[in-house]
Amino acid sequence: MTTQMEAAQGGVLTAALIQAAEREGMEPAVLRRSVAEGTVVILANNRRPHTVATAVGAGCQVKVNANFGTSPRRTHLREELHKLDLARRAGADTVMDLSTGGDLDEVRRAIIKASDLPVGTVPIYQAVVQTTGRGGDIPAMDPEEIFSVIEGQAEDGVDFITVHCGVTTRSLERLQRQGRVTDIVSRGGAFLAEWMLANQQENPLYEQFDRLLALARRYDLTLSLGDGLRPGSIADATDRAQVEELITLGELAAEAHRAGVQVMIEGPGHVPLDQVETNIVLEKELCNQAPFYVLGPIVTDVAPGYDHITSAIGGALAAYHGADFLCAVSPSEHLGLPTPAEVFEGVVAAKIAAHAADIARGDPRARQRDRKMSTYRKALDWQGQMQWALDPDKITAVHQERDLGGDVCSMCGEYCAMKVVRERLRSERA
Amino acid sequence: MTTQMEAAQGGVLTAALIQAAEREGMEPAVLRRSVAEGTVVILANNRRPHTVATAVGAGCQVKVNANFGTSPRRTHLREELHKLDLARRAGADTVMDLSTGGDLDEVRRAIIKASDLPVGTVPIYQAVVQTTGRGGDIPAMDPEEIFSVIEGQAEDGVDFITVHCGVTTRSLERLQRQGRVTDIVSRGGAFLAEWMLANQQENPLYEQFDRLLALARRYDLTLSLGDGLRPGSIADATDRAQVEELITLGELAAEAHRAGVQVMIEGPGHVPLDQVETNIVLEKELCNQAPFYVLGPIVTDVAPGYDHITSAIGGALAAYHGADFLCAVSPSEHLGLPTPAEVFEGVVAAKIAAHAADIARGDPRARQRDRKMSTYRKALDWQGQMQWALDPDKITAVHQERDLGGDVCSMCGEYCAMKVVRERLRSERA
Repeated sequence: MTTQMEAAQGGVLTAALIQAAEREGMEPAVLRRSVAEGTVVILANNRRPHTVATAVGAGCQVKVNANFGTSPRRTHLREELHKLDLARRAGADTVMDLSTGGDLDEVRRAIIKASDLPVGTVPIYQAVVQTTGRGGDIPAMDPEEIFSVIEGQAEDGVDFITVHCGVTTRSLERLQRQGRVTDIVSRGGAFLAEWMLANQQENPLYEQFDRLLALARRYDLTLSLGDGLRPGSIADATDRAQVEELITLGELAAEAHRAGVQVMIEGPGHVPLDQVETNIVLEKELCNQAPFYVLGPIVTDVAPGYDHITSAIGGALAAYHGADFLCAVSPSEHLGLPTPAEVFEGVVAAKIAAHAADIARGDPRARQRDRKMSTYRKALDWQGQMQWALDPDKITAVHQERDLGGDVCSMCGEYCAMKVVRERLRSERA
Repeated sequence: MTTQMEAAQGGVLTAALIQAAEREGMEPAVLRRSVAEGTVVILANNRRPHTVATAVGAGCQVKVNANFGTSPRRTHLREELHKLDLARRAGADTVMDLSTGGDLDEVRRAIIKASDLPVGTVPIYQAVVQTTGRGGDIPAMDPEEIFSVIEGQAEDGVDFITVHCGVTTRSLERLQRQGRVTDIVSRGGAFLAEWMLANQQENPLYEQFDRLLALARRYDLTLSLGDGLRPGSIADATDRAQVEELITLGELAAEAHRAGVQVMIEGPGHVPLDQVETNIVLEKELCNQAPFYVLGPIVTDVAPGYDHITSAIGGALAAYHGADFLCAVSPSEHLGLPTPAEVFEGVVAAKIAAHAADIARGDPRARQRDRKMSTYRKALDWQGQMQWALDPDKITAVHQERDLGGDVCSMCGEYCAMKVVRERLRSERA
């Protein structure tokens, strides 16, 4: 038995499962059943034993991923490691290295080495970058290279990979018939579509899915089935191309489960508020109840520069309705490569969304945290609040820059509601 | 006929109603019926004819208010006028002057003079500040002074006032029996509770509600019935004290409607995601379908410094379920008086929430805006995007500080999904 799923199916409580269960406040036996059924994944490449065990899926707290990585125009390894550090401090549960610039192997290995959190990648990026680096265009990419890149990354210890297996000849036909506003906005999806249309061939990650499963099984690499056709605008949300792809991802999830391979499903994208719940129900029903990993969803297209907020709105609602894993979106998502500070801001916003959903889902620890925070707030005890605040440094920074004095703040000064009636209500109660 | 409601009931299409209907893209006759029924208010003090006519309520676009004002520790009029300017630029539909420091009459008159948007206030603040300014404590406040302050502010042209008429002897009893984590967090509510408990008397704004109605009717001052007992923590949400107060506000709304006085209901506050819809349904059912004006709601207590995000999440969901008016919350809501930049950030976040809700509620203009934005995004046309973006200056700022070149951005460089497959999909379709 080589995967967490197979171990769980065999009744084995692995060290990673026990550690993950402890973190979730769950009985290991309960978590084991969920992992066996595939409704929860444990992100842990079996070649990299020192990762923080992280469970994603039904019954677990909502998790947050932070994306970063070099681009062809900005390739500073040190800056990416700084982003990793800030993402951790902001509370990210996992990180993804999406690098496309510089020495990709070096960057990835440095991130894996520096990260005790699970690390994910999108291997098709490296396959394309290597192809174009040799002077080829995307259609010149050799499918064998995709698989060798995946194997190399798994060997390095990557815990989960995005593979856009649902971009098929059929789904591209449906995309063309659909007539979208923004066609394809997934980079990996676009690379594969370009290759497929130019070569008039099926997606190798779909056609050779068995081979991918064998590889994933060997390293217990969790497959994150990417939504290459996710909507990139509100107008394209929940359209036929998206749902066609989701059905395919569901079939592949069922195959993965039969092979003992851990699998998540990636989801949109740009979705209006009124379609968020529908998207969660569809994913769970069509995809064997596999964990749902959403990018956003972003609830309006018109706020570039503020997409940590547009995605926090959609992410909170998605997670409340059952999404398991939120991909943090930086403020500048639609403008440019995020700065380290923007990676931090994006993770904080996603953590707010995840925590708000945990509260609404009835997680007693989440509710307790808010109760403690509010008890200290009532007492005007700033030190106490800093123990429970999502970003304690922010409290210090605001107080240092403004005129905080004594037990009231500059908002209301002596007209503090908490303070005005505190004594009176206390004596009335006595 | 002196109020918009009475005019509407009499079948008259006032200039303000026609202007508001045009802005909403509604037939004036349709808007007239809603104003007559009290499901929509038009914020327009009849002594101040030059305001932008603003309709708030069922069938209208979701509106956003910006709060600002001096505090005892910071009393710069110029800074408050700067906040007004930034709030307008960020897209606020109304502003509220919540000043409690400096010369309150001077500040208010300057804001009214400078604002073409409707202006609201919380008159109890001035009554308390005047009382304490004479060396008295809150219980020494003369109820007559509350009414004279209201009349003075109405005379100055204030369009709507928050009056915490629902803080009654009965609701305070229920509050005490409830045993809350954060008791009272509304300043106005706390002032009145302190006065009532110390003097063992009923709330004059409740006891003399007829007098308040007569005053409101004279100036067509819209009464925003304040939720003095709104929950100030997730633990206190939707409790007996809150709902008791809401029932009273509903009775008073019915009385106001009978008197031809325009009225809105103010709502929470701190509310977990799973209780947001319930709060909207309750308000509409208990309060004669009067417009609902929510402060937040904030969906977690643990993110001081980021309450523009916690409230954008709650506000978007509230507005989607029928809230009509969102009060912007600044990032530093629970930390200190907001800076001008924070007022701007708060309004942008609330506008995102309002717009996301308009989209989800099926507003064709809101959907069209996103479609246009996305069409320009697909074309990598930044100038086009700036026409439709919520904050075009942000796009310029990010692009200036980063390495934007040609028709791709620093996010993906030449690996832009939009660009990679654009030609291929175009040729396939042709």
